Amino acid sequence: MSVPARLSLVTLGVADVAAAAAFYEALGWRRSDASTPDVAFFATRGPILALYDAALLAADVPAPDGSPAPQATLALNVGDPAEVRRVVAEMTSAGGRPLGEPASTPWGGFVGYVRDPGGWVWEIAHNPGFPLDDSGTATLPDGPV
Amino acid sequence: MSVPARLSLVTLGVADVAAAAAFYEALGWRRSDASTPDVAFFATRGPILALYDAALLAADVPAPDGSPAPQATLALNVGDPAEVRRVVAEMTSAGGRPLGEPASTPWGGFVGYVRDPGGWVWEIAHNPGFPLDDSGTATLPDGPV
Repeated sequence: MSVPARLSLVTLGVADVAAAAAFYEALGWRRSDASTPDVAFFATRGPILALYDAALLAADVPAPDGSPAPQATLALNVGDPAEVRRVVAEMTSAGGRPLGEPASTPWGGFVGYVRDPGGWVWEIAHNPGFPLDDSGTATLPDGPV
Repeated sequence: MSVPARLSLVTLGVADVAAAAAFYEALGWRRSDASTPDVAFFATRGPILALYDAALLAADVPAPDGSPAPQATLALNVGDPAEVRRVVAEMTSAGGRPLGEPASTPWGGFVGYVRDPGGWVWEIAHNPGFPLDDSGTATLPDGPV
């Protein structure tokens, strides 16, 4: 097995994206220009932090077994759609549960979801808009911290 | 305001730490020697990932207003207890809600908790066992990925 040990984004569902983002901006964190009214991105020393409309997050993640919608997801970003499929397959072999089939997204990416044995949902993503640097770290279009 | 844009650890509450950790080990991720039966740590490209007994996580976080226990926390690690107090104060000024008072921990650290306006709980931590590197990234005793 060789899935990269990588946590690229943490996406938190929030009821009010603007109010949640205002808090981090008040700390002096820079809201990325990649943000929209539905989702605010912040580069950190660590993963990209995404604050995302909770209802939209719930709608993104397939629930084939009627499981409750996740309140947050962890992303592992990779270089292309084939790598998305490979990582989803390896996570499944390792005991994870795939949620739906990997598929293209409205934002030009390709994404698969896997729930780990503890119940936490990983989004395995190819996102051409957030390129990976040499270390495999996903970067926002306006750069790191 | 100048709180460092830093996400040092993501701590996920899980019912069965051993089963949750076995999944990540099956992916080829290395469980840190800093792990215990109650919590498993993994270095990633990104934050340290911690899988922690959900009941212990709930017990760690003060709930002064009877709010539900968090299922996960985000950690921002800093260099000393004074910096913990400063960051908690700045997060409070920015609209976060402090949960209890910053305090020493059984593992030799010093920790304060703040809930952000979206409801997510940050743990502001000084952890002498996970030193910060030059970039401010917390590192496990057995090193990065």
